[in-house]
Amino acid sequence: MAKLLKGKDVVESLNSKLTEQVSKLKADGITPTLAILRVGEREDDLSYERGAKKRCEQVGVSVKVVALPMDVTEEEYLGELDKLNKDLTVSGILMFRPLPKHIDEMKARNMLAAEKDVDGCTDLSLAGVFTNTELGFAPCTAEAAMEILKFYNIPLQGKKAVVIGRSLVIGRPVAMLLMHANATVTICHTKTTDITAITRDADIVVVASGQMESVGREYLSEGQTVIDVGISYNSEKNKLCGDVKFDEAEEIVDAITPVPGGVGGVTTSILVKHVVEAAIRQNS
Amino acid sequence: MAKLLKGKDVVESLNSKLTEQVSKLKADGITPTLAILRVGEREDDLSYERGAKKRCEQVGVSVKVVALPMDVTEEEYLGELDKLNKDLTVSGILMFRPLPKHIDEMKARNMLAAEKDVDGCTDLSLAGVFTNTELGFAPCTAEAAMEILKFYNIPLQGKKAVVIGRSLVIGRPVAMLLMHANATVTICHTKTTDITAITRDADIVVVASGQMESVGREYLSEGQTVIDVGISYNSEKNKLCGDVKFDEAEEIVDAITPVPGGVGGVTTSILVKHVVEAAIRQNS
Repeated sequence: MAKLLKGKDVVESLNSKLTEQVSKLKADGITPTLAILRVGEREDDLSYERGAKKRCEQVGVSVKVVALPMDVTEEEYLGELDKLNKDLTVSGILMFRPLPKHIDEMKARNMLAAEKDVDGCTDLSLAGVFTNTELGFAPCTAEAAMEILKFYNIPLQGKKAVVIGRSLVIGRPVAMLLMHANATVTICHTKTTDITAITRDADIVVVASGQMESVGREYLSEGQTVIDVGISYNSEKNKLCGDVKFDEAEEIVDAITPVPGGVGGVTTSILVKHVVEAAIRQNS
Repeated sequence: MAKLLKGKDVVESLNSKLTEQVSKLKADGITPTLAILRVGEREDDLSYERGAKKRCEQVGVSVKVVALPMDVTEEEYLGELDKLNKDLTVSGILMFRPLPKHIDEMKARNMLAAEKDVDGCTDLSLAGVFTNTELGFAPCTAEAAMEILKFYNIPLQGKKAVVIGRSLVIGRPVAMLLMHANATVTICHTKTTDITAITRDADIVVVASGQMESVGREYLSEGQTVIDVGISYNSEKNKLCGDVKFDEAEEIVDAITPVPGGVGGVTTSILVKHVVEAAIRQNS
């Protein structure tokens, strides 16, 4: 049976490091602060907001919510964003998306100051991921996958890593982060042929296809580490499932993240980590 | 014997398309113009400048050279760059690098307006390559490799492509461009183990390691297309050589770019293509 790479242990370790960093910052008169810019009351957003608030509180990071009505104009929205960009007490900004259709999301996204882009959604943050420089921040889920590999001491240098999925929030950035860690990375996607042979040959498989339980035993081989980024509600089984057929995988591979309880929870902690890093960068 | 993927034929085809586009633009009163910003008289720069000028003239693109002395201050340099950014008659800017040490190159590079960054050196151009959006332009050598594959009708979708090298001027961007063309891409680098098995398994191998004649028969297999991006002077053989052992490769693979006469010449044409594209984008 595979070793379970539980997110909880990674979160605890991150929390303790962050608590220490935050108390040092506070001793210097700096309170790392996350601003959340929300339009409307979408349940997904509210649930993520509650999670982020709780995780921030645990380590001493302040949260400031700017909630705008659904009929906010583009001008008003961008005005609020501009204020947060300029507000010296705000370290990082989380901009909930999608935005209502009357607001140009690309415009809004790239107006966000890269040094406060703790969610890694601006072009400059993505350029930083690609070039391996501190222009902004990596998308949180991609970095969460890396944090789990690091916490569990999974060797990456010279290892073969295969990423299934090429989205900008996870597939492409995690491929770059794995490459910066000196893994030999292959990116698979919907047009890939012979995918099962490619993934079987890997040491590390990051599954971010967004296709529930699509990766079964034919994709896997002994000795592998599997990071399952997917999370979907399986109405037949009446539970949350990942992109991997967990029961098949855990009989074959060395280590795997459970769903739920794997990557998901770590993602919020990475957001908080970025807020603290942003505060450190802005004050150094 | 492998088919030779000659750059000359690609250049001729590009030239004829560009000539047509430029005469249409001129009919509308627009003359695509490349500004070259050069410090000092380095032989490499002067030689590239002559090549670019000639290629521009062939298709009707104007060239404006701003030559500054080696002791130009950072302020003066950035001032000239700012003028070119704002000059409505300038479509694209080629900024020769490296800059003298007293000028902050990163600052200069990112001051360059992305929409005029025909050499693909700004963070926004690289973000565009990563996200597959028209923020700036791809680095010319990376796009030259793609143009050759396109001209010779080498199928990419669903094919395995391996890139040797992960630099920001060629390895990383060409990997992204291949992925956007739906190839399954693996990026190999100095920390990759078992590299010969990985490259032998590919349909397309792009070699950009910068190591002269480092890729021999053990890396290759039948049916492959090889793009050799390297170019170095081999003092023993008294000639220019690529990163591939050409004599060994041409006996095995299906198709290969010669060195010289392959990627190199196409790169300058891509620069000119970018100038014309910049003029079109700026006037649409």
